[in-house]
Amino acid sequence: MPPSTMRAVVLKGDFEVAVEDRPYPKIQKPTDAVLKVTSTALCGSDLHYYRGHLKCEPGFICGHEFVGTVVEKGENVSNFNEGDKVVVPFYTACQECYYCVRGQASRCPKGELFGNSVPANTIDGGQAEYVRVPLADTTLVKTPKGIPEEMLVLMADIFPTGYFAAARFLKNISERDRDEFTAVCIGCGPVGICAITVALTMVKTVYAIDSIPERLAEAEKIGAIPINISDNPVEKIKAASGGRGADVVMEAVGHADAFMLAFDMIRPFGQISSIGVHTEPLPLNGLLCYGKNVTMAFGRCPVRSIFEEALEVLVKEQKKVAFLCGKTMSLEDAPQAFKDFEARKVHKIVFKMPGEKVGESIEAKA
Amino acid sequence: MPPSTMRAVVLKGDFEVAVEDRPYPKIQKPTDAVLKVTSTALCGSDLHYYRGHLKCEPGFICGHEFVGTVVEKGENVSNFNEGDKVVVPFYTACQECYYCVRGQASRCPKGELFGNSVPANTIDGGQAEYVRVPLADTTLVKTPKGIPEEMLVLMADIFPTGYFAAARFLKNISERDRDEFTAVCIGCGPVGICAITVALTMVKTVYAIDSIPERLAEAEKIGAIPINISDNPVEKIKAASGGRGADVVMEAVGHADAFMLAFDMIRPFGQISSIGVHTEPLPLNGLLCYGKNVTMAFGRCPVRSIFEEALEVLVKEQKKVAFLCGKTMSLEDAPQAFKDFEARKVHKIVFKMPGEKVGESIEAKA
Repeated sequence: MPPSTMRAVVLKGDFEVAVEDRPYPKIQKPTDAVLKVTSTALCGSDLHYYRGHLKCEPGFICGHEFVGTVVEKGENVSNFNEGDKVVVPFYTACQECYYCVRGQASRCPKGELFGNSVPANTIDGGQAEYVRVPLADTTLVKTPKGIPEEMLVLMADIFPTGYFAAARFLKNISERDRDEFTAVCIGCGPVGICAITVALTMVKTVYAIDSIPERLAEAEKIGAIPINISDNPVEKIKAASGGRGADVVMEAVGHADAFMLAFDMIRPFGQISSIGVHTEPLPLNGLLCYGKNVTMAFGRCPVRSIFEEALEVLVKEQKKVAFLCGKTMSLEDAPQAFKDFEARKVHKIVFKMPGEKVGESIEAKA
Repeated sequence: MPPSTMRAVVLKGDFEVAVEDRPYPKIQKPTDAVLKVTSTALCGSDLHYYRGHLKCEPGFICGHEFVGTVVEKGENVSNFNEGDKVVVPFYTACQECYYCVRGQASRCPKGELFGNSVPANTIDGGQAEYVRVPLADTTLVKTPKGIPEEMLVLMADIFPTGYFAAARFLKNISERDRDEFTAVCIGCGPVGICAITVALTMVKTVYAIDSIPERLAEAEKIGAIPINISDNPVEKIKAASGGRGADVVMEAVGHADAFMLAFDMIRPFGQISSIGVHTEPLPLNGLLCYGKNVTMAFGRCPVRSIFEEALEVLVKEQKKVAFLCGKTMSLEDAPQAFKDFEARKVHKIVFKMPGEKVGESIEAKA
């Protein structure tokens, strides 16, 4: 018998969340499943609504990064059974529409975004004891072996997003480009760290640009060459590339200044892969766009479409990114966790359910 | 013995060219060749300096579309001999630099642009009886059979440019995309006609957008579906694509309004291939770039890099584009030709040398 209520993190207003009793989530459609959540995390994009930058109707359950166990399923769910441990991409997908069949699941018209109330297609999230997952058969992925469960919360969003940033223009490049390309990542937050980790499996040289020395040190530790943003990054990248500029820039900030920096340092025929959520205008110079023969790609990662290939890299490279999940806290402490996370005191916080042991550091298995 | 002077079309100032005696062009480097020009054409981009939009130092010999016969060569030219009939891409290329080996010859640092005086790397053009071609071994292409010589002037620029516009995102698409994609070309001038011709070899459905009914009629004649720009093109493209928008838009105008129209009609995860020379700012909305997951590529066609594959399509599809070269005039009449072309009275004018027969229409061979 499922419980009638559960504990859940709820947005109350700007800079305010509370842990409240909420009704146990019922199956609503025959394609739904309900999960008992085992680990769920805070992500940088949770700050968009927490800080009030993205105006949301309060009252929804937060969180789009979670793993759990299937406890109930609708009658049309055939790929999963009660007891299956699963990972959940942050956006559900039908796997049969015009977008899904082309690997573009993040724009699936039937898809829904967890832990948000705007724009359309949003549902309660996974910072709770239980969560309802629509389109379960085509959204869920069985938990793989060889990697700690807590680290799999990275697969809901930021690791595939980093993979997407890198793979758009670095996947399947020639051996020559692998050796000769100058790749750059602007922004060394958790998504940037994931992007750098993936890029270094595809190309030999990745420069990392940020303004925070600690973040640059972390990027350096995983193999990137750090450049402080105040230290003439455009000149440094040009000097490192025979005067040409960067071949590929990954922009993992989501601010117009970061994008324009990417544009300034890209070489003719270079490619910019932007995964930041931009809210400002991007004032591009048309003559320079032509003169640079630039290619620019934007947008939200289609997590479900690239899940398997991103996971394969995460399992291999988990040691590099384990530090991102180093901190666990109880779901009951979510108000403090949001405060610490917002103040950048921690990289990422993984919530365990009320009553479970917390505070232990997560060790990579591979 | 070469003559000491030759007739040549020279820019004198805004809206003014003259046909003058100029010195026969000498070999300057061992990699140079000199051609006797047999056909040379007016191109839309000649209007950039003729109209004064692109500020140039007057006095240079105009023209970057020409074919001819090798009459002299430097000692390091080994791939061509006197008497060889050749086609000349509008920008020379070394075939060995970082850009050339990657198929990006239009940014070859050793490359030079014919018939212009700005920016750097510009040389006298081919609207003359003779022309010097630097980097002859790696720039020239022997004239193929199976196509009239006059039509080969299209290979110097506009046909490869149309090919580049189409191939960037339509080459090697899946059979499903070939059937289901909604492709659009904005701008039905000569380059747009070439882009549509190539695109229709790669995808079933191409919409053509312009404001001039005659141009739309020509686009329709070669197989595109015409939409007048005043006739709600965004709504029409959405209606034709299940509400999604265009999969691929080729922008062949070079004006910010045309680019923004492309942006408005592109579907999520759609791709914009811009080959227009933009001189205005492109005021992009960052949130829409993210929300649309858009990819945008700009810039100058690397003619030499894609010459062979573009030529293969031109030989097959020459009947569709023969009308672009329908008008021949004597080089001596260049001042009138520029006037008529600027006033859009003709598509394109192919110049024949003084004394040759003109006014005949060119018939496709295939």
